[in-house]
Amino acid sequence: MIIVMQHGASKEQVEHVFERITAIGLRYQAIYGEERVVIGVIGEEDLIRTLPIDAMPGVERSFPILHEFRLADREWHEQPTQVAVDGVVFGGNKVVVVAGPCTVEDEPMLVRTAESVQTSGASMLRGGAFKPRTSPYTFQGHGEQALAYLAEARAATGLPVVTEVMDTADIELVASYADVLQVGARNMSNFSLLKKVGKLDKPVLLKRGMASTVRELLMSAEYILSNGNMKVILCERGIRTFEDGTRNTLDLSAVPAIKTVSHLPVIVDPSHATGRSAFIAPMAKAAIAAGADGLMIEVHPNPETAMSDGAQSLTFGQFEQLMKELGPIAAAVGREI
Amino acid sequence: MIIVMQHGASKEQVEHVFERITAIGLRYQAIYGEERVVIGVIGEEDLIRTLPIDAMPGVERSFPILHEFRLADREWHEQPTQVAVDGVVFGGNKVVVVAGPCTVEDEPMLVRTAESVQTSGASMLRGGAFKPRTSPYTFQGHGEQALAYLAEARAATGLPVVTEVMDTADIELVASYADVLQVGARNMSNFSLLKKVGKLDKPVLLKRGMASTVRELLMSAEYILSNGNMKVILCERGIRTFEDGTRNTLDLSAVPAIKTVSHLPVIVDPSHATGRSAFIAPMAKAAIAAGADGLMIEVHPNPETAMSDGAQSLTFGQFEQLMKELGPIAAAVGREI
Amino acid sequence: MIIVMQHGASKEQVEHVFERITAIGLRYQAIYGEERVVIGVIGEEDLIRTLPIDAMPGVERSFPILHEFRLADREWHEQPTQVAVDGVVFGGNKVVVVAGPCTVEDEPMLVRTAESVQTSGASMLRGGAFKPRTSPYTFQGHGEQALAYLAEARAATGLPVVTEVMDTADIELVASYADVLQVGARNMSNFSLLKKVGKLDKPVLLKRGMASTVRELLMSAEYILSNGNMKVILCERGIRTFEDGTRNTLDLSAVPAIKTVSHLPVIVDPSHATGRSAFIAPMAKAAIAAGADGLMIEVHPNPETAMSDGAQSLTFGQFEQLMKELGPIAAAVGREI
Amino acid sequence: MIIVMQHGASKEQVEHVFERITAIGLRYQAIYGEERVVIGVIGEEDLIRTLPIDAMPGVERSFPILHEFRLADREWHEQPTQVAVDGVVFGGNKVVVVAGPCTVEDEPMLVRTAESVQTSGASMLRGGAFKPRTSPYTFQGHGEQALAYLAEARAATGLPVVTEVMDTADIELVASYADVLQVGARNMSNFSLLKKVGKLDKPVLLKRGMASTVRELLMSAEYILSNGNMKVILCERGIRTFEDGTRNTLDLSAVPAIKTVSHLPVIVDPSHATGRSAFIAPMAKAAIAAGADGLMIEVHPNPETAMSDGAQSLTFGQFEQLMKELGPIAAAVGREI
Repeated sequence: MIIVMQHGASKEQVEHVFERITAIGLRYQAIYGEERVVIGVIGEEDLIRTLPIDAMPGVERSFPILHEFRLADREWHEQPTQVAVDGVVFGGNKVVVVAGPCTVEDEPMLVRTAESVQTSGASMLRGGAFKPRTSPYTFQGHGEQALAYLAEARAATGLPVVTEVMDTADIELVASYADVLQVGARNMSNFSLLKKVGKLDKPVLLKRGMASTVRELLMSAEYILSNGNMKVILCERGIRTFEDGTRNTLDLSAVPAIKTVSHLPVIVDPSHATGRSAFIAPMAKAAIAAGADGLMIEVHPNPETAMSDGAQSLTFGQFEQLMKELGPIAAAVGREI
Repeated sequence: MIIVMQHGASKEQVEHVFERITAIGLRYQAIYGEERVVIGVIGEEDLIRTLPIDAMPGVERSFPILHEFRLADREWHEQPTQVAVDGVVFGGNKVVVVAGPCTVEDEPMLVRTAESVQTSGASMLRGGAFKPRTSPYTFQGHGEQALAYLAEARAATGLPVVTEVMDTADIELVASYADVLQVGARNMSNFSLLKKVGKLDKPVLLKRGMASTVRELLMSAEYILSNGNMKVILCERGIRTFEDGTRNTLDLSAVPAIKTVSHLPVIVDPSHATGRSAFIAPMAKAAIAAGADGLMIEVHPNPETAMSDGAQSLTFGQFEQLMKELGPIAAAVGREI
Repeated sequence: MIIVMQHGASKEQVEHVFERITAIGLRYQAIYGEERVVIGVIGEEDLIRTLPIDAMPGVERSFPILHEFRLADREWHEQPTQVAVDGVVFGGNKVVVVAGPCTVEDEPMLVRTAESVQTSGASMLRGGAFKPRTSPYTFQGHGEQALAYLAEARAATGLPVVTEVMDTADIELVASYADVLQVGARNMSNFSLLKKVGKLDKPVLLKRGMASTVRELLMSAEYILSNGNMKVILCERGIRTFEDGTRNTLDLSAVPAIKTVSHLPVIVDPSHATGRSAFIAPMAKAAIAAGADGLMIEVHPNPETAMSDGAQSLTFGQFEQLMKELGPIAAAVGREI
Repeated sequence: MIIVMQHGASKEQVEHVFERITAIGLRYQAIYGEERVVIGVIGEEDLIRTLPIDAMPGVERSFPILHEFRLADREWHEQPTQVAVDGVVFGGNKVVVVAGPCTVEDEPMLVRTAESVQTSGASMLRGGAFKPRTSPYTFQGHGEQALAYLAEARAATGLPVVTEVMDTADIELVASYADVLQVGARNMSNFSLLKKVGKLDKPVLLKRGMASTVRELLMSAEYILSNGNMKVILCERGIRTFEDGTRNTLDLSAVPAIKTVSHLPVIVDPSHATGRSAFIAPMAKAAIAAGADGLMIEVHPNPETAMSDGAQSLTFGQFEQLMKELGPIAAAVGREI
């Protein structure tokens, strides 16, 4: 932690800060510049973070030096982490493609979709059972019934399944069906949910919140990791900006940004990020080129009848075509798909 | 709903849209412009929203005409709603000031704070028992113990108390102590939580999410209202922008924006919005001038020892001074405080 | 400047940074923490800014300690600056209201508007001669003819006039008519324009860019000040965010933020910020309550026939009413209007 | 244009809107819904845009139906436009790489850089002569001297050169040296500059403003096109968001978004977008995968001595390596580099 004192801070104010630092067992070193005193705090940075430094008289501001996340930090775990789900490995050489409908609508559509995306090369099935919808008047998902359909689709194809959990009360239920639990963008800062999925022995797909920085995404991952669950897969799915030509703004630089500071695998969801089916293929290619470990793509047998997010779903044919086009991109960055 | 067909959409594509509209029992009227066909859908707009219009072939985009929220809508309920909490009325002529510490630290500090803010003119006590913190390594609140302290502070002063609930599993517990349940900014789109507090007979203070529009705030309110709980108080507390000189950007135009379309009372939290104690007084004044029905302000006996958010807390003396300054502002807009 | 070395930076890398610092005549002090070396640079901070510190091997990042602006800094000039324009003083006790049409349409409408806003209490007239319009196909302003009308309106009323200059080629022309030159939000980072208006002896109204931080606004002011023109008035007029219910998001906390670090006067333009006439009155009141030194408000004899920005213009009657309501607010913060 | 009347708008208000529409020679068609009247305006949409529809009594809001840009519109010019610069073609099958230093520092460094990037495969040289810098106290570029160096580097290598023009007063000078004029992000809405470069017979590289939507970028292009200069190359270079881990947020979905509605070529600048040299390679690959027609990359002989933007410059070796890696990506999307 670096503490910058105000221009004209008094000797007493500076010494008061020294005392507060030493009172918690840390050391400090002061730099007397021409216009300001700057204090470097030496020792466990988490300790100094417990003090409201910026509220002390004469303090202008303070900067952290170390990452607040530890278990998610590459300094703690240098090698990339691989998260395996029934033989599907996130973070390995193979780019993992998760595909399926936004919402599980019924059993036949789900099995049909699972079979089709599997044939085209997907390694995992996605499908919403509990749906976070902006309006209480729109379809909220089939709940447990949908979970059962997902299990049937898995039985039919062998594809592991990922589905979202929105409520701490449903964790056990969802975990009893799903191979991977998804924490959605709207719940990235639902710390109760994070703590509880952190206590499971089940991989978690953690999506970046729409107003969250990469650092905050890693702090949310830290909630899961620090509760004992090391199987965390991150997902970039677009952030909120002023640009209204796409649903969100896909921040692909989050991929190298995450890889630089963390060992966790990261995938990209171009469907929710763009909200437009025509933009999914170029953004899926870009994601792989940028180094993503996987993709999450919405596929529906007939998007114009979808119960949610039809405008951003690919047809079976479009998905098949996309998978063909992704192969050379993956090869160009030394990976396979 | 207005549907804009693509330039060059075929007759078949246009007729297909007509068929989809009539198939769900609605009517339409087409406008054949020089470059595009535009289709107006007549009838229950919620019905047309169930169709993935934008995924239909030949459709360029679609615009809703009506608000998606109904119960929160001023068209449904013309008069401003007043939410009464033990004699404290949100949405009336009196501007309600809620004050107290970010976190309930112990019983003496809480009671002392309650007494002090009451003397200065606050009508309600705030204090965090369950704290949403970015880092799992920082203090997470004293939980039920803190709720008990809040009850004691209420007993000592008569001030009703508001505190945050973060987990559906804690709703009953928190509701057994608190007079108003707060749903925090990070949980504004935690729809499970919204539905469950919507089933209570207890006022809910709903804070705007950092990446949420006013429309989305009203949609979240709608989750509570449509589950039967009409006692909703909204709170503007700053949104995420690129400006890094303040913690968030306080969007005071949300106050008239909400008042224009909704009947619900709205208060403003300048503490979390700015993150800087020096900016609280000017923004509190501005909020009242803009028409806010109340304020939520962090006050701490000694901010530089606060367990959280010290830099944005007022001292007792600062709060007392602020309350004195707010009186003339309230009077200037025809209200009292 | 504080330089944070990477975890594991080598002794050679650290010493290389030392050498680069001393090579330009500065001193340093190193803090050897448990996980990183941090280097404080002592001496003229502008000098160290000429080095691409972050590009040096082993450097993780660097933080400036001092403001980059000097002449705009309150540390350089402690007392608030007052900018006088023909007896109208920005930054004094009186809140200055600048009013007038978005665009100067013709001479009679301008004079009529000037007379009306003067009667209602405005101190200065605004009106666009050169208009920055998003589309090349919309009206671009009457140019020099409009400047002449402004001069006539000034002659008729005695109100000084402010109008925008967009092109360095027009500075002399605009300055020959206007009492205050406006640099619009779109040109806040047009540094050529800033330098050239900085060489004039004429007040400049500098509007904050839509994507600019307060710090950047002050850096743009510094371009004018450092070229010799100390008569700079700042203007907050809304920033770009994801919220689409208003044209921009009015950042009123910019007012105390600017006052804290700078001595320059700051006014607020609620018309452009909100884009909606119904929100102008509450935001104008809020601006004064927040401490603004003035307001800039669009007024038009008949907004529904305006050549630009009709939706955000007040009628004469609305403006008269607003001025009446602003008086008590100004009084409540110890000012007059 | 679609006009939505307010709930409860009177018959007179609706008829008044009809009259305003027919008064300018347009037709309308009204849709009487259950809760609101919606009016479709038929005819030249630019005409209706001259009216301040939203300021008319009883109007709730209005939506444009057609793009405001015409010459930039794919509906006007279906085939992709190719802009040729001395044999280098933007918008063709070959991905064009523009490389060079942020700032032209001296003649030897520029020629050396030009030769090196040419050897590695770049097709054009970039280099700043007039630099838009946030601070007036930092290096502002060598101006005309730098232009002369660029001409020498072109003579030495045959690479065409692109450099920025910031001031209408410098257009002639810059155009006399450069092969392509760059309008930078900060000047994207400097409409005077756009009009004047629109009158030249010289390609223009137009960078997206940091707070500008894709639609606004195309409107700025329209300023150039409508003044007669059809040689416009667009450039995505990152937008302002809350994410502070990168300098800006590179919005790669702008590439397919532009290609969908416009025929103009679009390139990507990962250097300015990310501000970090380590992120340039992944983002450059992603840009090509997303369909960009070219790249603009900062290369410096020794970034840690650069006079500006060292932290985002590649060394010769890094650039050479990147060019090798880009080949397979280009091939994977059916292009060459």
